[in-house]
Amino acid sequence: MQTIGTIYTPYRSKEDCPIQPRYASGASGRVELLAQYAEGLKDIETFSHIYLLYLFDRSGEIILARPTFLDETPHGIYASRHPCRPNSIGLSIVRLLSREGATLMVEGVDMLNETPLLDIKPYIPQYDAFPDANPGWTAQVPWRQKPEGRE
Amino acid sequence: MQTIGTIYTPYRSKEDCPIQPRYASGASGRVELLAQYAEGLKDIETFSHIYLLYLFDRSGEIILARPTFLDETPHGIYASRHPCRPNSIGLSIVRLLSREGATLMVEGVDMLNETPLLDIKPYIPQYDAFPDANPGWTAQVPWRQKPEGRE
Repeated sequence: MQTIGTIYTPYRSKEDCPIQPRYASGASGRVELLAQYAEGLKDIETFSHIYLLYLFDRSGEIILARPTFLDETPHGIYASRHPCRPNSIGLSIVRLLSREGATLMVEGVDMLNETPLLDIKPYIPQYDAFPDANPGWTAQVPWRQKPEGRE
Repeated sequence: MQTIGTIYTPYRSKEDCPIQPRYASGASGRVELLAQYAEGLKDIETFSHIYLLYLFDRSGEIILARPTFLDETPHGIYASRHPCRPNSIGLSIVRLLSREGATLMVEGVDMLNETPLLDIKPYIPQYDAFPDANPGWTAQVPWRQKPEGRE
């Protein structure tokens, strides 16, 4: 696996980072693809949302069941989006604002500045939107409800 | 990156594979995590849907803009879910039916049998469901509409 580009965000430290894009308060970011992959972006501007797959390159110790950012109860790493996980792959859905050449302007970033990019995929609601999916243990965590005034 | 387990599906060849889980007609699969990661599954059974991240280990030549399974117009690989892509990471959302130890029974698989697993993440609708997202160029492809009688 090789990085295909870099994600630039306002977040310099883990303390700054929102826990998920939906709570990122519309923070803007920039995705700079390496020039040799720019052709792979053809038609991406027709989508409103994209997946960014990236490397959690500053994550800490991998603990298979641990408390998360949401509550104090330990949950399995595969039942959580915690960054300290085997293979260190992060997944975020962001809004695509614009493209210029190999650069994408996006909104709703939740990763650290200068995060190495692994892949981009279009978000296709017919494949990806399951609004009635069971949110599992996260449903019991009251303060993770969508804050007022945010998307 | 190391595989953390294996995904077993009914699909022995690329020709057998549905193009996306939503078109997989409810095909059942089995995810076998390596025993040393089983603890990481704690509480996963509280979710109805999960992401599987896996390796497209039998994909072919990487062409940055190419026709996809949906139409004959070339689209950028990052505006498509085509398997032949840099870093070869696949992403599918499947329904979680049950868990027993390190084994998950899932529904709606669309990957080849014995696909190497890289990560599992819970699908959390508050983070992940954007039913109003723009489906981009895929909206113009009539035969990719949801087939009758399938979810």
